[in-house]
Amino acid sequence: MLTDVEIAQSTEMENIKDVASRIGLSEDDLELYGKYKAKISLDTIKKVENNKDGKLILVTAINPTPAGEGKTTTMIGLSQAMHLLNKKSIVAMREPSLGPCFGIKGGAAGGGYAQVVPMEDINLHFTGDIHAITTANNLIAAMLDNSIQQGNLLNIDTRQIVWKRCVDLNDRALRHIVVGLGGKANGVPREDGFDISVASEVMGVLCLATSLHDLKSRIARMIVAYNMDGEPVTVDDLHATGAVTLLLKDAIKPNLVQTLDHTPVFVHGGPFANIAHGCNSVMATKLALKLGDYAITEAGFGADLGAEKFLDIKCRQASLHPDAVVIVATIRALKMHGGVNKKDLAEENLEALEKGIENLKKHIENIGKFGLPSVVAINAFPTDTHAELELLKQKVEEMGVEVAISEVWAKGGEGGIDLANKLLNLLETKESHYHPIYELDCSIEDKLRTIAQEIYGADDIILTKKVINKIKKYTAQGLDHLPICIAKTQYSLSDDPTLLGRPHGFKVTISDLIPNTGSGFLVAIAGSIMRMPGLPKQPAANNMDIDENGKIVGLF
Amino acid sequence: MLTDVEIAQSTEMENIKDVASRIGLSEDDLELYGKYKAKISLDTIKKVENNKDGKLILVTAINPTPAGEGKTTTMIGLSQAMHLLNKKSIVAMREPSLGPCFGIKGGAAGGGYAQVVPMEDINLHFTGDIHAITTANNLIAAMLDNSIQQGNLLNIDTRQIVWKRCVDLNDRALRHIVVGLGGKANGVPREDGFDISVASEVMGVLCLATSLHDLKSRIARMIVAYNMDGEPVTVDDLHATGAVTLLLKDAIKPNLVQTLDHTPVFVHGGPFANIAHGCNSVMATKLALKLGDYAITEAGFGADLGAEKFLDIKCRQASLHPDAVVIVATIRALKMHGGVNKKDLAEENLEALEKGIENLKKHIENIGKFGLPSVVAINAFPTDTHAELELLKQKVEEMGVEVAISEVWAKGGEGGIDLANKLLNLLETKESHYHPIYELDCSIEDKLRTIAQEIYGADDIILTKKVINKIKKYTAQGLDHLPICIAKTQYSLSDDPTLLGRPHGFKVTISDLIPNTGSGFLVAIAGSIMRMPGLPKQPAANNMDIDENGKIVGLF
Repeated sequence: MLTDVEIAQSTEMENIKDVASRIGLSEDDLELYGKYKAKISLDTIKKVENNKDGKLILVTAINPTPAGEGKTTTMIGLSQAMHLLNKKSIVAMREPSLGPCFGIKGGAAGGGYAQVVPMEDINLHFTGDIHAITTANNLIAAMLDNSIQQGNLLNIDTRQIVWKRCVDLNDRALRHIVVGLGGKANGVPREDGFDISVASEVMGVLCLATSLHDLKSRIARMIVAYNMDGEPVTVDDLHATGAVTLLLKDAIKPNLVQTLDHTPVFVHGGPFANIAHGCNSVMATKLALKLGDYAITEAGFGADLGAEKFLDIKCRQASLHPDAVVIVATIRALKMHGGVNKKDLAEENLEALEKGIENLKKHIENIGKFGLPSVVAINAFPTDTHAELELLKQKVEEMGVEVAISEVWAKGGEGGIDLANKLLNLLETKESHYHPIYELDCSIEDKLRTIAQEIYGADDIILTKKVINKIKKYTAQGLDHLPICIAKTQYSLSDDPTLLGRPHGFKVTISDLIPNTGSGFLVAIAGSIMRMPGLPKQPAANNMDIDENGKIVGLF
Repeated sequence: MLTDVEIAQSTEMENIKDVASRIGLSEDDLELYGKYKAKISLDTIKKVENNKDGKLILVTAINPTPAGEGKTTTMIGLSQAMHLLNKKSIVAMREPSLGPCFGIKGGAAGGGYAQVVPMEDINLHFTGDIHAITTANNLIAAMLDNSIQQGNLLNIDTRQIVWKRCVDLNDRALRHIVVGLGGKANGVPREDGFDISVASEVMGVLCLATSLHDLKSRIARMIVAYNMDGEPVTVDDLHATGAVTLLLKDAIKPNLVQTLDHTPVFVHGGPFANIAHGCNSVMATKLALKLGDYAITEAGFGADLGAEKFLDIKCRQASLHPDAVVIVATIRALKMHGGVNKKDLAEENLEALEKGIENLKKHIENIGKFGLPSVVAINAFPTDTHAELELLKQKVEEMGVEVAISEVWAKGGEGGIDLANKLLNLLETKESHYHPIYELDCSIEDKLRTIAQEIYGADDIILTKKVINKIKKYTAQGLDHLPICIAKTQYSLSDDPTLLGRPHGFKVTISDLIPNTGSGFLVAIAGSIMRMPGLPKQPAANNMDIDENGKIVGLF
């Protein structure tokens, strides 16, 4: 059994110039980062602006469980399969964060024979985008504290600073800190904290920006603090807009890499899917649509978080029109949703499976509410039994939706042919009537209620007093026209991570409302949200190594 | 009058493949980062290992003043001039840190018509080396705090943690902080602080490493804390060696760029010259020696800090044998050393100049003590008068040393022909008898005294009680064979920044002694040393901008 990094390193990659040439790009369109990575120049993006769009396919999933679903792997394998069927398909996906890589995951560029390569680069510094974001974020913080230190001309209330510093690592000791200690020369003491870089609003704006110009406007209006009169202080008030945009001048360009089968993949941007909108960059998705006949993309966590934000925020802001949705599930994960413990997953359990399928069914219903056709992809495991697969198929087909078995992890593109064929059939036979689930001109409260009731299946929402006051304030400020980005646990359709399957009879409590004016949405906090993960007892980093010949172990 | 970034952007760069081909490198030797930057592969470095070495020239300077000396500009212009004389010369220099770039300097890749390009990339993220160092440093910190959180099996004394986190920005609010607040789930509260990345030991080890293997050994032995028994805890004890080395797998490869005249430059590594040894990487310097007939390099700050560490630490550790030294000065700076205020520098003042020349003379003497021949380069300013230049020439020539007027800032390589000719003549007529100023087997105290007396011109050293105890402890641990890296103000030959010119009758107080076991030296603290700069009232970042066509302003 080979590890992911062994499979990746034993594959001979194609020069990225050759991968690019097959989607109509010449060397002049590329900014090479070694032989196997390239950024696409902004001139090229302008050049293809009037190309006809391909079909847009979203890959999403059931609520994640510790059993694993393999959404990214399925997406990559699906695109490999499309190429075997001579379809010009391009993947647009997120860049992995170093935090989870060194913490638990050890890598996030697919798995088995459905991987994006060079995986060791993609999982480490890649082309430096996230480092640029970290630096941009921290320059804003340094200029903010410097403004206070140098006379506080903006009259910033040090108790109302909302801008956090960040690192792209799991580092719980930085969650709650006090800075500016050590006397007059060393800043003004105040409470502070670090988020992981992929949770920062800089990542959000980079991913939603449609051009360098749009990025700059978004940066300018990000709120960093409130002054003593309660008015927002922005990045532009700090005179930091230009320098921050300058730091992001290369990060904004989509990165081109390849699958193990040398098919094209844009890996660009990776905002957290709980606190932010969880999708790769708009520029990468648009470029995939302009250069491919099929653009296949994903959104973080399950469909309640990822797909909802993709459809209500990203597609709406960027005028994207998705054509179909693939919903990924595994028999194992559905059994966990049906109440089975992780250690008992190898045993057949039809009763638990049937109960767990309710989670999948709710997501299928939800995708329908957005006016979109869907197909279910079962990411196959050796322990899946015939009876289990048949039960699942029957239950899903009762809803008028097809099920495909995906074996891309073990077989690469060949293992995704069934899924690819069913997807192509879906695209030919069912039309997309995509629309967001709520209108922008309804009230903040109505938007929250619509998402909670229609998507999560909640009875209602509960608003804390703080939120009620903030709704009034933001409505008066004209921020009520913004879409909502709900920060909620990924493990449940509800706001309680222990409620698996398809919970009923619950209410969703909204405890805070934060304007992300650069991203252009209001973040609604439902439950306690992790903006800075911690390392486990045995971090994945413990097992990583590189020898003097460059052989790498421990990335998987 | 064009700004630096305007000059740089109006120059048509050559494809870096063409620059490389002129020093015998093919595309296979390069890892391209766009069209104008490349890393050199480790295989190539091995391949040229047995090439004959070129001549090694160090460019150093008088003690810096607010008037500016232009050491880097002179070095770059000198190499451009060498090429005009058909000499195959390669520059090896440091990478700029983002901190000073956004703080005061706005850029550090030379100036005027003696620049390294693409300056906007070199001054920003470049090829990501410093970001890799920041991440490696902070991964160690996260794993250290995680080890304490997860049961503290290494018995780390949280009052004796010596490893700081870092950011590559000027951010004074992070100098003294408390981390781990917020209760049991959020780490163990303790005092902490951030240094600027270029002051971290990770930067030190990257710059002194001779191979990936050597880098890994150095990382393994870096001390991060002491346990309850007072014994050192290392990176290897945290099981972080492999992951940290993996993070640095690309950062260790030297970066190739070009001057405005398309001559080759390696820009690689940039440790602070106060707290660390202040030289570019050993691997870049060696590569320049293997591929060029002349390798021209520099060391940070004045010759008392930079040249001393280059000659006593870098050259000794890496078995380098320098051939000659260029000492850069300006009439303006020498007048400041003679007591003139910055606002009065435009006026002729022979008396002050003569007094200030004493600073230069001491550095010329010092270079002689290392057995090395030198030439003085006067970086010309329009305000320099004929009488001033004649006085300077006379005083320096009395010491048997030649003076060349350098006008590379205004004229590029043409302005450095006189300097290049005098350097070539020096190399032909005077032999190098290079040797360090102290032997490794003498005691720590004797090494400190030798540097203070011989190089700084001090009467003696004063050791605090703490230092006396540490000397005993480190001697017992066998660390007394290490060279010394003195952390001292750059503004004076003494440890008092206000003592300009050539101070006499002073003693140097050593207040702390810190083993940098990865770098392989003991850092001796003489005076208060800045490991984290602050931003000024009007940061350079305020004036930076990029428009939608990519035009950049504010980098200079």
